[in-house]
Amino acid sequence: MTKETRPVVMDAQALKAFLVEVFPQVHEDFGIDEVAPMEITVRLKTAERHLRPGGTVSGPSMFGLADVAVYLGILSMIGPKALTVTTNCSIDFMRKPVASADLIGKCKLLKLGRALAVGDVLLYSEGMDAPVARATLTYSIPPRD
Amino acid sequence: MTKETRPVVMDAQALKAFLVEVFPQVHEDFGIDEVAPMEITVRLKTAERHLRPGGTVSGPSMFGLADVAVYLGILSMIGPKALTVTTNCSIDFMRKPVASADLIGKCKLLKLGRALAVGDVLLYSEGMDAPVARATLTYSIPPRD
Amino acid sequence: MTKETRPVVMDAQALKAFLVEVFPQVHEDFGIDEVAPMEITVRLKTAERHLRPGGTVSGPSMFGLADVAVYLGILSMIGPKALTVTTNCSIDFMRKPVASADLIGKCKLLKLGRALAVGDVLLYSEGMDAPVARATLTYSIPPRD
Amino acid sequence: MTKETRPVVMDAQALKAFLVEVFPQVHEDFGIDEVAPMEITVRLKTAERHLRPGGTVSGPSMFGLADVAVYLGILSMIGPKALTVTTNCSIDFMRKPVASADLIGKCKLLKLGRALAVGDVLLYSEGMDAPVARATLTYSIPPRD
Repeated sequence: MTKETRPVVMDAQALKAFLVEVFPQVHEDFGIDEVAPMEITVRLKTAERHLRPGGTVSGPSMFGLADVAVYLGILSMIGPKALTVTTNCSIDFMRKPVASADLIGKCKLLKLGRALAVGDVLLYSEGMDAPVARATLTYSIPPRD
Repeated sequence: MTKETRPVVMDAQALKAFLVEVFPQVHEDFGIDEVAPMEITVRLKTAERHLRPGGTVSGPSMFGLADVAVYLGILSMIGPKALTVTTNCSIDFMRKPVASADLIGKCKLLKLGRALAVGDVLLYSEGMDAPVARATLTYSIPPRD
Repeated sequence: MTKETRPVVMDAQALKAFLVEVFPQVHEDFGIDEVAPMEITVRLKTAERHLRPGGTVSGPSMFGLADVAVYLGILSMIGPKALTVTTNCSIDFMRKPVASADLIGKCKLLKLGRALAVGDVLLYSEGMDAPVARATLTYSIPPRD
Repeated sequence: MTKETRPVVMDAQALKAFLVEVFPQVHEDFGIDEVAPMEITVRLKTAERHLRPGGTVSGPSMFGLADVAVYLGILSMIGPKALTVTTNCSIDFMRKPVASADLIGKCKLLKLGRALAVGDVLLYSEGMDAPVARATLTYSIPPRD
């Protein structure tokens, strides 16, 4: 049996409820479009506070979407372990996002070990074909209690 | 002559004025502590909006400080080229920042070429010895006009 | 028209001939399995010199495969510009490769600009489902002469 | 007490003996110049097999030096745990190394936790002021037995 056959244990609704409870500051920024085993699609509802002059989305907002997408992707598979923390991110900014569109983060988990998880994210301005950014994040998963 | 002997062309005051003009949304978040050839120290004035539950500073806020530190470090050497853009960042989150302290970003430029610049940043919770994060960013510098 | 519709300008045979000529030291390490627009699959013909104790493939060998896969992927689209150079790589080692199998690098180009190109690579021990590593590389493309 | 006050537990001679025993394929490539708490300097004895056309050192050789420098830096602090493995590397290639000089890797450990360690490396062509590359590596440290 490969890891890919593990089932989702938190669906979009459960993840959203978790986000509302644990990250009250930012949950309104994000929507969860789709959850599947080892995959998730998360949306940044682009608003004035995410923009930069010149009509684009800020770097920290793009980073934040990639970060939350992998986080929720992991929780969808292992349940609500809030203490799962980012240890590393590499991110490439490739094209200028459109300020007037939501940003869509398509995440695939490449590894879901006991202690470490790795996920890839492609970021798109909604409606565009070419990704505006890509990121890989590593999360440290706390030991079972 | 090594690159390190190039002089600073924008000092802390000029950089701050530039930030106020070009990044009106975020300039209040940042202070510039020190500017030297190929080096800069930038401060995130930690406020409620940068925090996360558990008394820590958010990942996007740490990314944002690293990003602006390298950006201002480059501009201090080449002048106000607003179109200088981040192409890549790798960031390691190593310790939990303290919510009640400012975050200090100490940046060194390792390369300042005609088209690409690379800078390293160590992030510290003010008053602590061990860095909370490290980051390396690459910027693309637009051709001279 | 999107970039993805650009045609391949060097096929597997042309790329192999180029490798033989320009990288005489390493061309025997690599085979080119498949070339398509913005995609390439390159094989490390695993041999004694690529191994490490414990029956695994060395980190530098994995890095080398990822590096050459993106390089050849770029050349397949822009022709034999030998001076195209790696500027950045982030690589995640996720599972232990099998010493007795070739290593397969599946590369997708995510950006092919005039000055910079970005490619993602997944590395597999041949016959295995889960990737052993992933890498993203940025290349700097020399100006047209 | 900060981590920086931990003493070195394997000196240059002990590290070299370990390398000879555990990595018979590559130990001749490397020399250990200096070991201090949380710091190490390792040398790639540049030879024909590390070079590329155009008189430069290959990317995999530079990666290999950065990798071994952080590995030995960690072992110098925690003892001979051979199963300590690289999980992530980000590396920036900034200048062309000189083929006729050794490559010097100056490593600083930024974090030495129970499960993860992070080290920065600057790579220099011996005798040059500006670094040719920089890298950050994360290692996973096996649980105590």
